[in-house]
Amino acid sequence: MGTNIKAMLFDVFGTVVDWREGVARELAAFFLRHGFAGDAHAFADDWRGRYQGSMEPIRRGTRPFTRLDVLHRENLLATFAQWRISTARIDAAEIDELNRAWHRLDPWPDSADGLTKLRKIGLIAPLSNGNILLLTNMAKRARLPWDCILGAEAVQAYKPHPDSYRKTAEILDLSPRQCLMVAAHNGDLHAARDVGMATAFIPRPREHGPRQTTDLVPEQDWDFVARDLIALAEQLAGD
Amino acid sequence: MGTNIKAMLFDVFGTVVDWREGVARELAAFFLRHGFAGDAHAFADDWRGRYQGSMEPIRRGTRPFTRLDVLHRENLLATFAQWRISTARIDAAEIDELNRAWHRLDPWPDSADGLTKLRKIGLIAPLSNGNILLLTNMAKRARLPWDCILGAEAVQAYKPHPDSYRKTAEILDLSPRQCLMVAAHNGDLHAARDVGMATAFIPRPREHGPRQTTDLVPEQDWDFVARDLIALAEQLAGD
Repeated sequence: MGTNIKAMLFDVFGTVVDWREGVARELAAFFLRHGFAGDAHAFADDWRGRYQGSMEPIRRGTRPFTRLDVLHRENLLATFAQWRISTARIDAAEIDELNRAWHRLDPWPDSADGLTKLRKIGLIAPLSNGNILLLTNMAKRARLPWDCILGAEAVQAYKPHPDSYRKTAEILDLSPRQCLMVAAHNGDLHAARDVGMATAFIPRPREHGPRQTTDLVPEQDWDFVARDLIALAEQLAGD
Repeated sequence: MGTNIKAMLFDVFGTVVDWREGVARELAAFFLRHGFAGDAHAFADDWRGRYQGSMEPIRRGTRPFTRLDVLHRENLLATFAQWRISTARIDAAEIDELNRAWHRLDPWPDSADGLTKLRKIGLIAPLSNGNILLLTNMAKRARLPWDCILGAEAVQAYKPHPDSYRKTAEILDLSPRQCLMVAAHNGDLHAARDVGMATAFIPRPREHGPRQTTDLVPEQDWDFVARDLIALAEQLAGD
């Protein structure tokens, strides 16, 4: 790489994997098994809709760091309550298993190939709010060739808190500007740039389904903009 | 696996890689470059000899958690002083580079193949006192196919403190008895068994060179004893 970038750090939910289809698929099977009526995609959206809010007390320091699997489970139960679906007669182990739908998300078609190419250029790791086990199980199933699993749990801070980016660079003994943050979300890149990281935007216009209105285009002059992870590897290799 | 084991956790220095030859190789080149006389293997032994002591204040809680790269560098400078070798005219960057000899250790001949087989049986991760970057760089160079990088830095506790084992199982959402600790050191297995982990002993009779006297045989009835990591994979697959 002509640039000074030594490590590439990736947002995962939406950027590397398609969380909405993966979660909806498992919800649909669960609904069918229990005779619940309801749109699994809409339920997935509501479950994910509680994601940012559930991390907020931890970012503010009013709740101790709690891994995402635990927040996801709390959010799942709250979404069931919102939908007036009683889970009283469902085994806790089955709820746990449904909650692990987030460990079994499929990558976008370019992700595994793109990461394999990027891994030849430098160190690659997730910088995700997902916990280590979630990201590890996902990588094993989807064959994502991470060099190591980083992210919120490793640094005990949730994005976009500046500590999540800064402490990840520290683990790698790099300055932030030697790290490239790769994301499909302008807000994530904004926070990464604020601490000095380089930035790459990959649009994922179907992350939120066919009627997505957010993050369709880069909202700043990010250092790299690429169609997908394979195209990003080509840009960086030629840089 | 017929047993209940879901994750295999590995000691690394000595168990997976040959630290003594790797460190001596880089020391010999450094000595030659600077015209220092001295036995690189003896220096490597002295450098490593400071390893346990340097973690002790952290285990006791009198020093905040400090990653191993930092302790290794302090120990390197102390060993130079012990050997009355002046490094005053040597660039700090060159000392840093020598210190990273620990990132460039070669695996034992069976390690990469053995881990590849073990990875098909369950989740594999280092539970080493090495820091995340050290283990990541080592794995990338030596093609060690870890599912994720765990160890002291992830849990902010050095082996054999019980927290290092317990908190690693917690990250994996497993009880200790669902974890198998694999090591060439009886002491490591003793501490892992104390918190309830299953244990596997792999003798590495040349870790300390041709005159090794310690850890030549299993000192307790460990759950598994195997000649090397390939043989361990065969035992576990047939279990």
